[in-house]
This record gives sequence, structure tokens and C-alpha cells, in this order.
Amino acid sequence: MSSSKTNNLAIPLEKIRYNEQGLVPAIAQDYLDGTVLMMAWMNQASLQKTIETGETWYWSRSRQELWHKGATSGHIQKVRSLRYDCDSDALLITIEQIGDIACHTGERSCFHQINSSKKAPPADTLSEVYRVIRDRQENPYETSYTCQLLAGGDNKILKKIGEESAEVVMACKDDDGNAIASEVADLFYHTLVALAHHNVDIRDVYRHLQSRR
Amino acid sequence: MSSSKTNNLAIPLEKIRYNEQGLVPAIAQDYLDGTVLMMAWMNQASLQKTIETGETWYWSRSRQELWHKGATSGHIQKVRSLRYDCDSDALLITIEQIGDIACHTGERSCFHQINSSKKAPPADTLSEVYRVIRDRQENPYETSYTCQLLAGGDNKILKKIGEESAEVVMACKDDDGNAIASEVADLFYHTLVALAHHNVDIRDVYRHLQSRR
Repeated sequence: MSSSKTNNLAIPLEKIRYNEQGLVPAIAQDYLDGTVLMMAWMNQASLQKTIETGETWYWSRSRQELWHKGATSGHIQKVRSLRYDCDSDALLITIEQIGDIACHTGERSCFHQINSSKKAPPADTLSEVYRVIRDRQENPYETSYTCQLLAGGDNKILKKIGEESAEVVMACKDDDGNAIASEVADLFYHTLVALAHHNVDIRDVYRHLQSRR
Repeated sequence: MSSSKTNNLAIPLEKIRYNEQGLVPAIAQDYLDGTVLMMAWMNQASLQKTIETGETWYWSRSRQELWHKGATSGHIQKVRSLRYDCDSDALLITIEQIGDIACHTGERSCFHQINSSKKAPPADTLSEVYRVIRDRQENPYETSYTCQLLAGGDNKILKKIGEESAEVVMACKDDDGNAIASEVADLFYHTLVALAHHNVDIRDVYRHLQSRR
């Protein structure tokens, strides 16, 4: 049995079930916010190359050749972990996308459209809320609470962070689960507004957290 | 052209490219934390049923029939959004998984194993950090900072929330992007410890945030 140099990439290669063309679908997912960046195909050789190199290699069905993702564009994918599903016929690859562009169109993700309009695919809830805040920042309107906060600047936003953190403390002291979840949601939201106000990406926060693990 | 009753499910059906068997891979992803729950196959009829009903219908290759996910188990998937990729030959479906179990094995996700040991697939960074904290809670060891916080209880944890929120305020006042990201990471981490201490799931926080959108 083949296995890899690192634990995260150690999957039992002999278990993987390929289709009639000898291929298995591989889903590439961002390690920071869970965004699905692309789905492509691997054969046994490309899977082995991926495990050996720690970078994704796919099988190009159109060119009928091994394809080292990013070899020409520079947008390689560093593999963080690799796993297969309960039927052993699909792969899920957690990656760090170099250059933050996975799609040949230049978009971050291949799943970038709904109908004919462009719309980034969903990430986790906090990232989604942050995206809405950035949108309000770019397209402000008077009745939006987020816009009112942003218009008030640091003194208005940071006052709310103090207030909401005190409310988290009180909800914890009351040991009231629902109040805790609700107050933490408030604290997170206002903190995201502060991030947006200072043009700090939520993924920079995630990078800090990941680097400490 | 067929379209759906809601905007989020409106994809141009005639654009989807099916394989030789008339199938297209469909990735189902949790709407809260971005976890990939399963990958299955759809044909045109199942895709149409999915759009019409707002619940996922797949094509069972083993049984060669339409398969309303959760019809027998009750673990249906409510569709939040539906999109296709740049080649129009893969679908990404954002879902709310009823019962929080997508896999026929009873696991939350079909991608639940690495090698022969069970390990849940990655979600977003905050959820991952929360998972580590829960693990420390169940398997404590003396040198772990998280374990020391948890052992100190509310008074130790909540004092840190006050301290870290003040540090976020100061970093914002200094308009120092890297310090802001780092202090927000600290604030988020200590807030997650408070959640764990009170047995409040981070997804309950995400549910609060989603319900306000």
C-alpha cells in the first residue's frame, strides 16, 4: 500500500474507486473559509503525484494529460489535507490556493456565477456577513444599521464592541445558552464592522488563528 | 428555458452539461460552516425536481432511480442556493441539512475518514478552532493554555474577553491592520473558549447571524 510522507495526505490509495475512465472527482476547498474553489478529475497517477508533491495534480480530460494545477499561471494549490468519501469514489482536498485564484477565468472559484450574474460561492457564515458589510460600505444607504455604524467611524463602532463584549460577559454569568449565542453573534458582527472600517480582511484574522494551531 | 420560483435556485438548466450517462456531479455544502457534506449525481429530471421542491433529489446510480434525499431517513436537504461551475459540468448546492446527518453511515458528512480513522472534514477556521477547544475540554492536559482557561472558569475566561476587546479597540485606534487582525483573532479565540465552557455550539451563533440576514 502506498502512503504519504505526512499524515494529512495518508489515504489508502488502493481503496479509491475510479470510474470507467479511471477517474475520480476531486473537490478543492479553501482551508480558511471553506469556499469550494473547483471540482476536477484525478486518475491514480495524478493522485499519487498530488500526495508525493503536496500540490494538486489533476487529469485534464480535454488535453488527456496530467495537469499540474498552476504550473503556467503560478496559481498552484498547496494541499493541507486529503480525504475520500464513504463510497471511496470522491475526493475532498483542503488547499491553500496560491494567488487566491482557482478558476481559469481569473475568478477565485469556478463556482462564481448564478444565472448570468457573477456571485461568489458561499463561505462560512462569518465570511458571508463580512461580505455583506463590505457591500454596504461600497453601496451605502441611509436606513442600513451597518451604514450608520460605518458613518460613525471608530468611536461609534468601538463603543459597540465594548458594549457587546460586556453583554457576552453578562450572558455567560447568567449561564443562558441562547443569550450567549445571541450576544456572541452581536459581538462578532460589530467586530466585523470594525474590520471592514479598517480594511482588514476576515481571512487575515483566520490566517492568524491558523498559524497558531 | 426552465427557471425556478426563487432567485437563488434560478440556474439556466439548458446550459448544464451532462456526461455520457446524462449525469452531473453535485456537491452539497452546509450553509452555516461550509463543510462539504456529500457528493452525488444528478440527471436533468432530478435537477428539475430539486429546483421545483427546494429539496435535493439525486440520481441513484446503484438503484437507477430518482432519489429524494432523506425520504426514508428524514434527513432531507433544504436548498439555500444552487450554482454551476465555469464549465457548466458540476453543481454546487448550499443546503441546510435536516438532522445534521448527510451520510448513510450516520456521520454528518460522507467525507468523514482519513486513512482508517474517523475525522470530520474541515469547516471554516473559527469552527476548526472551536473543535480543537472542545477536544481540549474532553482530553485536558496541564500545559495547554486552553485547558488552563477552561479550568479557571468564567472569571478567568471572561476577564480575557474584556482584555482582548480593549486590545481590539486600541489596535483600531492605532489603525494598525496587522495588530487589528491579531487582536481580533485573540478576541474570537477567547470568545470560543467561553462558548465551549457554556456548551454553546458555534453553529448556534452562526444560526443567529443567518437569521438576521
